[in-house]
Amino acid sequence: MSRFWSEGVEALQPYVPGEQSSRQGLLKLNTNESPYPPSPIALQAMRDVSGDQLRRYPDPSSSVLRQALAEYHAVDVAQVFVGNGSDEVLGFAFKAFFCGKGALCFPDISYSFYPVWAQLFEIQTQVLAVDTSYEIPFDEIPADVGGIIFPNPNAPTGIAASRSQIETLLRRFPDTVVVVDEAYVDYGTETAIELLQAFDNLLIIRTMSKSRGLAGLRVGYAVGSSELIEGLLRIKDSFNSYPIDAIAQAGALASVQDERYFRETVSAVIEARQQLIQGLVELGFEVLPSSANFVLAKNQRKSGEEWQSLLREQNILVRHFNKPRLNDWLRITVGSSEEVRALLQALSLL
Amino acid sequence: MSRFWSEGVEALQPYVPGEQSSRQGLLKLNTNESPYPPSPIALQAMRDVSGDQLRRYPDPSSSVLRQALAEYHAVDVAQVFVGNGSDEVLGFAFKAFFCGKGALCFPDISYSFYPVWAQLFEIQTQVLAVDTSYEIPFDEIPADVGGIIFPNPNAPTGIAASRSQIETLLRRFPDTVVVVDEAYVDYGTETAIELLQAFDNLLIIRTMSKSRGLAGLRVGYAVGSSELIEGLLRIKDSFNSYPIDAIAQAGALASVQDERYFRETVSAVIEARQQLIQGLVELGFEVLPSSANFVLAKNQRKSGEEWQSLLREQNILVRHFNKPRLNDWLRITVGSSEEVRALLQALSLL
Repeated sequence: MSRFWSEGVEALQPYVPGEQSSRQGLLKLNTNESPYPPSPIALQAMRDVSGDQLRRYPDPSSSVLRQALAEYHAVDVAQVFVGNGSDEVLGFAFKAFFCGKGALCFPDISYSFYPVWAQLFEIQTQVLAVDTSYEIPFDEIPADVGGIIFPNPNAPTGIAASRSQIETLLRRFPDTVVVVDEAYVDYGTETAIELLQAFDNLLIIRTMSKSRGLAGLRVGYAVGSSELIEGLLRIKDSFNSYPIDAIAQAGALASVQDERYFRETVSAVIEARQQLIQGLVELGFEVLPSSANFVLAKNQRKSGEEWQSLLREQNILVRHFNKPRLNDWLRITVGSSEEVRALLQALSLL
Repeated sequence: MSRFWSEGVEALQPYVPGEQSSRQGLLKLNTNESPYPPSPIALQAMRDVSGDQLRRYPDPSSSVLRQALAEYHAVDVAQVFVGNGSDEVLGFAFKAFFCGKGALCFPDISYSFYPVWAQLFEIQTQVLAVDTSYEIPFDEIPADVGGIIFPNPNAPTGIAASRSQIETLLRRFPDTVVVVDEAYVDYGTETAIELLQAFDNLLIIRTMSKSRGLAGLRVGYAVGSSELIEGLLRIKDSFNSYPIDAIAQAGALASVQDERYFRETVSAVIEARQQLIQGLVELGFEVLPSSANFVLAKNQRKSGEEWQSLLREQNILVRHFNKPRLNDWLRITVGSSEEVRALLQALSLL
C-alpha cells in the first residue's frame, strides 16, 4: 500500500495473462495464438511504413482501417470502433455502458478479465453459473441486470451459443447493452453481426490477435449501433487520442484485405482442432465441444495442475486456471498439425 | 444522448488533437512533431520484427525496453513504466493517484488534456493562473491540493521551470503526488530525474513522440519512485495487459540505443528554434522564451485566428487555441531550417 495511491488501487486484483516466454524450443499452447504468422501482405504493409510517416502522429480515428472493416462486415463506418487490442475496447465498453447501471451479468466460467474491469470501474456484478454441460443458461439472467457480457464462443470452454439464442436474449433486454465478445468467432461460430440491423443494444467485440495471427500488433475492434460506437469514442477521446500506431493501422488494414490467407489459415486450425480432439479422446480425455482455436480437456488420471506441470517439463505450455469448476481442466491452444502431434505424443507418454 | 451510456458520458468534453492531414505539400507545424524521421537503427529494428514474433503476444511488461530506459536514466527498472503514448501514461496516473484526493492543481495555460482526464475520472480541479510573464506561480499553489501536474517546459508557452523551483515544490508537498510532464524536456530544459533520489512523490512523464521522431509509434513512459510505478502497473494490468505492440517495443528500444542520432536531431531543432524566434521578432512578433520544439508567438496586426487561417491558405498549419489568454497567440512547431525559412517567408508576405 502507498499513501500516494487513489482510493481502490490497493484492492485491485489485476488480470494475470498467460505466460509469455521467449525461451527457444518451447511449444506454446497457452495463450491461443495462431500457429501461423500474419498475412505476408500485412507484413509487407508494416515494413512499408516510412520514417516520415512514423515521425508524424497517426490518424487518431484510424479512418481507413475503420472504413475497410465497415465494408468487410457490411455495416456503416459509424458502426466501427478500433482499439489497442480488444482488451482496450472491452475496457472502454465497461466504462462507457456499465457504470451507474444495475449489476453487470457474465458467466462464472468466462474471460477472467471481466471481473477485473468491473472492479476498476466500480461496477456491481451478477455472476451467472454455466450449467452442467458448461453452457450459458441465458434464460436465467435476472430481469434487472444493468448489462450483459459474454464471449461467443465462450472462453475457456469453447462452447458456442447460436445466433437465435442471442437474438432471444437481445429481444428480452431491449434497454440493456449486450456485449458479445467474438474473439474466437472465426473458428466456426455464427457471428451476431447480422443482428445489428434489428438491435441497437448489441455491441460485438473482435480481435486481430487470434484468427489473423496478429497478437503482437494489438488491434481489436467493436461493431455496433452508431450510438454505442459514439459512446466508445467519447471515452477513447477523453483518454488517449491516438491509441493505434501507424504500423498497426497499416498491418491491420492489409490483413483485412487478404481474405484468402485468412480463410486458409483459419481452415487449417479448424482441421487441426479435429485432430487434437480425436487424439485427446483416444488418450482418455474428456473434451468440451469447441468452436474456438482451443479446447478445454480433462483426464482424471491426474489433476489439471499436474498435467500442466508435467507438460511443462516437456517444454509444452498449456493453460490451467486455478479456479472453482475449472481446476480439473486444461485449456489447450490448437496449434499446427505438427504441434498437435507433438502434444499428443508427449501426453501419450505421461 | 443515448439511454445506453453510463452516467457522465454525455457530459464528457473529449480532447481535440491538432489536425492530422495527409494532404500533399502541406507544411505541418501544428502538432510539435519532429522534422526528422526516427533513427535509421530504430526503423531497421521495426522492420526486423518477424511474422513469428507478430503472431505471438508481445511481452506484456515491455521488460527489455524498460531495462534500457532504466539504464538510460540511471534508475532501477522498478522505477520505469511504459505506455501507449504518454497520453495513456498520463491517463493512468490520473486514475492511480488523483481519485478521491483533494483537488488536482494545474496551470490555466497548460496541456488541455488535463481537465479532460479529470472529468473522465471525476477528479476535482484547482486551476492556477500563470502570471503575466506566463510563468507558473508555484508559490501560489494552495496547501490543501490533492495532486499537482504541469508540463516542464510548459505547453503551449514553452517556458521552463528550473530544477530548483521543482525541488522547492516537492519539499513543500511531501505527501502529494507531483507529476512533471517532460514531453518537451530534451530541447533545453533541466530534467527533474535527479530529484527522484530524494523525492518519492515525484512522477516524471516522457514521450518518444517529439525528440525521438516517433509520434507514429505511440510510446511514452514514466519514471518515478517504485511505489508510484507500482500504482501505474496496477491500473494498467487492470485495464490492458499488452498495450505496447512488438514493433513498438523494438523500435523504441533501438531509438534509446542510438544516442548519437538523438543528439544530432535535437541540436538541429534547437538551432532552428533560434532562427525561428529571430525571424519572428524581425517580423514584429512577440515570442515567449521557449525551451521546447515550438514557440508561442503573437503579432497584434492580426488576431491569432486570422494568422492561422491566412497561413492555412498558404498550406501551412500552425495551432491556435480558442481559449482565454491564448486567443491572440499562435503555437508554431519548430521545423527544419528549410521549413522555418518557408514559414518566415510566408509570414513576411501577409
